[in-house]
Amino acid sequence: MSLIRTDLALEAQEIAAEAGALEGVTSEQSKLGDVTVTKVKVLDSRGEKALGKPMGSYVTVEAPGLGEAEDESYDRALDILAHELEAMLAPLGDGLVLVAGLGNAAMTPDAFGPRCVKSVLVTRHIAGELTKITGLEGLRAVAAIAPGVLGQTGVETGEIIKSLVENIRPAAVIVIDALASRRATRLGNTIQLADTGIIPGSGIGNSRFAINRESLGVPVISVGVPTVVDAATLTVDVLQNAGMPPKPEQEEKIRAAIEPGGISMFVTPRLIDLIVEHAARLTGLAINKALHPGVSVEDMERLVS
Amino acid sequence: MSLIRTDLALEAQEIAAEAGALEGVTSEQSKLGDVTVTKVKVLDSRGEKALGKPMGSYVTVEAPGLGEAEDESYDRALDILAHELEAMLAPLGDGLVLVAGLGNAAMTPDAFGPRCVKSVLVTRHIAGELTKITGLEGLRAVAAIAPGVLGQTGVETGEIIKSLVENIRPAAVIVIDALASRRATRLGNTIQLADTGIIPGSGIGNSRFAINRESLGVPVISVGVPTVVDAATLTVDVLQNAGMPPKPEQEEKIRAAIEPGGISMFVTPRLIDLIVEHAARLTGLAINKALHPGVSVEDMERLVS
Amino acid sequence: MSLIRTDLALEAQEIAAEAGALEGVTSEQSKLGDVTVTKVKVLDSRGEKALGKPMGSYVTVEAPGLGEAEDESYDRALDILAHELEAMLAPLGDGLVLVAGLGNAAMTPDAFGPRCVKSVLVTRHIAGELTKITGLEGLRAVAAIAPGVLGQTGVETGEIIKSLVENIRPAAVIVIDALASRRATRLGNTIQLADTGIIPGSGIGNSRFAINRESLGVPVISVGVPTVVDAATLTVDVLQNAGMPPKPEQEEKIRAAIEPGGISMFVTPRLIDLIVEHAARLTGLAINKALHPGVSVEDMERLVS
Amino acid sequence: MSLIRTDLALEAQEIAAEAGALEGVTSEQSKLGDVTVTKVKVLDSRGEKALGKPMGSYVTVEAPGLGEAEDESYDRALDILAHELEAMLAPLGDGLVLVAGLGNAAMTPDAFGPRCVKSVLVTRHIAGELTKITGLEGLRAVAAIAPGVLGQTGVETGEIIKSLVENIRPAAVIVIDALASRRATRLGNTIQLADTGIIPGSGIGNSRFAINRESLGVPVISVGVPTVVDAATLTVDVLQNAGMPPKPEQEEKIRAAIEPGGISMFVTPRLIDLIVEHAARLTGLAINKALHPGVSVEDMERLVS
Repeated sequence: MSLIRTDLALEAQEIAAEAGALEGVTSEQSKLGDVTVTKVKVLDSRGEKALGKPMGSYVTVEAPGLGEAEDESYDRALDILAHELEAMLAPLGDGLVLVAGLGNAAMTPDAFGPRCVKSVLVTRHIAGELTKITGLEGLRAVAAIAPGVLGQTGVETGEIIKSLVENIRPAAVIVIDALASRRATRLGNTIQLADTGIIPGSGIGNSRFAINRESLGVPVISVGVPTVVDAATLTVDVLQNAGMPPKPEQEEKIRAAIEPGGISMFVTPRLIDLIVEHAARLTGLAINKALHPGVSVEDMERLVS
Repeated sequence: MSLIRTDLALEAQEIAAEAGALEGVTSEQSKLGDVTVTKVKVLDSRGEKALGKPMGSYVTVEAPGLGEAEDESYDRALDILAHELEAMLAPLGDGLVLVAGLGNAAMTPDAFGPRCVKSVLVTRHIAGELTKITGLEGLRAVAAIAPGVLGQTGVETGEIIKSLVENIRPAAVIVIDALASRRATRLGNTIQLADTGIIPGSGIGNSRFAINRESLGVPVISVGVPTVVDAATLTVDVLQNAGMPPKPEQEEKIRAAIEPGGISMFVTPRLIDLIVEHAARLTGLAINKALHPGVSVEDMERLVS
Repeated sequence: MSLIRTDLALEAQEIAAEAGALEGVTSEQSKLGDVTVTKVKVLDSRGEKALGKPMGSYVTVEAPGLGEAEDESYDRALDILAHELEAMLAPLGDGLVLVAGLGNAAMTPDAFGPRCVKSVLVTRHIAGELTKITGLEGLRAVAAIAPGVLGQTGVETGEIIKSLVENIRPAAVIVIDALASRRATRLGNTIQLADTGIIPGSGIGNSRFAINRESLGVPVISVGVPTVVDAATLTVDVLQNAGMPPKPEQEEKIRAAIEPGGISMFVTPRLIDLIVEHAARLTGLAINKALHPGVSVEDMERLVS
Repeated sequence: MSLIRTDLALEAQEIAAEAGALEGVTSEQSKLGDVTVTKVKVLDSRGEKALGKPMGSYVTVEAPGLGEAEDESYDRALDILAHELEAMLAPLGDGLVLVAGLGNAAMTPDAFGPRCVKSVLVTRHIAGELTKITGLEGLRAVAAIAPGVLGQTGVETGEIIKSLVENIRPAAVIVIDALASRRATRLGNTIQLADTGIIPGSGIGNSRFAINRESLGVPVISVGVPTVVDAATLTVDVLQNAGMPPKPEQEEKIRAAIEPGGISMFVTPRLIDLIVEHAARLTGLAINKALHPGVSVEDMERLVS
């Protein structure tokens, strides 16, 4: 099996397909201008084993990169992202939604979740007041939290969210987290939605308390953007792209050379601050659009500040 | 009754005493070098009414100001503060303590709680590992959270803390918050400990969900440092210090002139960023010292980073 | 003479006018919706003495406050501000402009200048490239610097700017700084333009190296927004508004009560972080609009961010 | 010639030595506990050509990594670094020193210079006052600036520094910058001192205005810490460490696979925020120690805040 590490179902599917026939997984792709949408479904335990991901739907929106962004494609990516998220939320009714931003706000590549939460329009406590200001009936109740990571709190992030869920009883939870990708070109411009929840840190090698319907007792939608690449994965991937694919035993040697003590090393681009900021803003706006389809983007930007 | 607003029992007691004989309250003061410790006890409902504060003990440590700080008095203030906090914690056993930093990390005068939490040594998840590093047996389990304010989360801060308390069942909670003082000279250098918990925002005029033994079901110690002064209070206080005390109806006029729509205005010194940073570091170190009396300040600084 | 401290010519004129007939000063006011524009001209040495400000033009734009802001009045304030600044720049030709943000980026009330500079479109090094992107001919060359304060650099801010001016030879300099106002209600929403340059720290009581045409050898336009009020001034002003104006000897007592060691105390609202952010963005956009009148606000926002 | 990119003379020497006999370069290494000091001298044009670095002395101090740091080795690294820097400064007399932090404070991997400057004790404006506080005669005059990068200012960093040098006439300049290394294990814990000045951005592929004795007219000492690795270099290096060295034409393919448009990609570890913070503090303290050998580290920490 490949040593390539990724949190993206899209990439896991690619890798599994390279290795041979793939059962228990479907995948379809569509293009709208320069935005690509890929829907991967893990149908059964064969698919789970092949992709290393739980059964469910994974929707990936690939927007143009930070540097290449033009106005129209940014707006298109925002629309598509909001539309796909709205579709995932639709079956869950219009009750309270809790948005939880995972990660450490003080570590840039890990700060995607907390920064995204800053752009989310929080309404649970002022739904009536906002309706007055915006003139819009029935804004959805939204709560948000960025609880910090285990090293900051001493408590598993999932435990903190679970505690709050038991108390405020949302109809659904949206968890936002930074992911690992196999490809540096995806960092900051690929957004993955999934109806399977999330296992924090799973992409970076230390699995823990799951945040999903099973653990929280309510539906959980995850939204993630890759901000790091595993260094061994980067090396292997570059070799493949350069037409020099390593053999399995060479992959082992590569990983051992990078991770002397078995500790994974993740790398991130030099412009990571810009990349995280850009992705957090786009994702935050898309979440707002999906949760309050009646409010315009301009009004939203004014309300969020 | 006076229009002076303050969160400090010490000042509430001063104000009540100026107004006449005071029953149901005791107060004693001691000096160690340039550090003053004042202990105010609210004994019964007469005291509660006179001071506008719930029954309990309030200990105020007045350290030398930021500008005047010399090494010895900083160390003395740290020792005294840790000692007083340890004394409040002693009857509560040596079980898990949850430290909760209230306030909005993005608003400097309100960021005292969250910044203080950054200096707190969190051990719940790594007590064993730390014991190995430090060679010290029996480090106390400590968890910490800075949940953000109602406007950021849509959930009362007290509700978030209560949810977590129900889940991790600490032996005690320490809540940290920025306070309002009547005197600008106290900002950043007066620390109040109380065994009565806290009502967030009470000092700044909007009482809400209490965070105390009654609401959380476990003992709650509050630690607060004033970072703002109510503008009307500042004016009245200056007039008194200048030997021109306003009459009650003049106070009303003053408040009306400052608060046209009845909205309180709070002011803070220009150097508020430095003041908050300094106070948060001192308080964080004192909390660590009180919770882990066996660990030296040097080791603590290394562990906290 | 009054003890009221202010950096705003508008307020200095008010105060002087209260004290009696005013010579050597003209003043006119106009209103556009809820935006007020006041133009004060100091004509000669009588005016200089009366206002404590050098000869020249002072244009003050009063926008609606942060809380009250609605879209149209924000846009109107932005248009007016840009228009007034453009009028001041017009006689200076279309050569290189150096924008200098004064103040300490790490102290919120003092950070207005540096934050404003972040919103300024810098083009000196890429004028050609930007013209290609925007399709607009002849974008003006703009350079920008936020040199930090004397305590950070060991060098007077004016000296650093002067050094750079001698090297890059701009046609004009725009200096941006945080000011002191007599009135808390003006903080963050009153913008003063002046063709007289600036004396850093003059509003807060420590005059130093001037930054003006005389010292730099090129025309200097200053842009300032009040973010602090002197505490003694606040007290006196409140008493006047409350119909209890202090007599001169009472003012002395008030100042002495606030400033025991003769050190001024400045206060700032609790929401200072928001106020500075809001004002810096508005001012930055207005500067861009004035410097590049051919570029739309939307294009500007895309280019800056 | 190798495609490996590095700013460290130590690594350039390694690479050149691998390729064959090396003339015009001397190198010696010593170990003090777990701190390694390597001194590379580029003696003539043969050495310049072999290493791609100007003639002069390069001293590299390799401290233990962030994670492995123990108190004694941190203190040892600090002492050695200060000692080596003091030795470079000694021939330059005890006049004013200007410390210049290069890089963009808003981009974490590039923020090493500006953050380092924050830890530098600035005394030019208060030498007398500090002498009074510390009781130490003859503190050296130090000025400091973090001018920002070309994209922020529109002016080459070297031009800004040159302007200031012409104005304040320091006896020497210390420039601080983030570097590129060939090895991820060096990031944040290898400090290079050189008496040759610096060419900003040279390590990351875009050479520009040099900052050296020739351009500034005064001696320039550079202090750099690697915070990024070129992605192609990382790949090649991993292959070599894994015992699979690529042939020259394979290196070309690897670089082409990573840099489709010829644009370099640099990577940095996930914990880059911590790494930069740690390195900036260590380096700042060492600079202070070297500039003011009479002041203790404790006093220094108090003075710097």
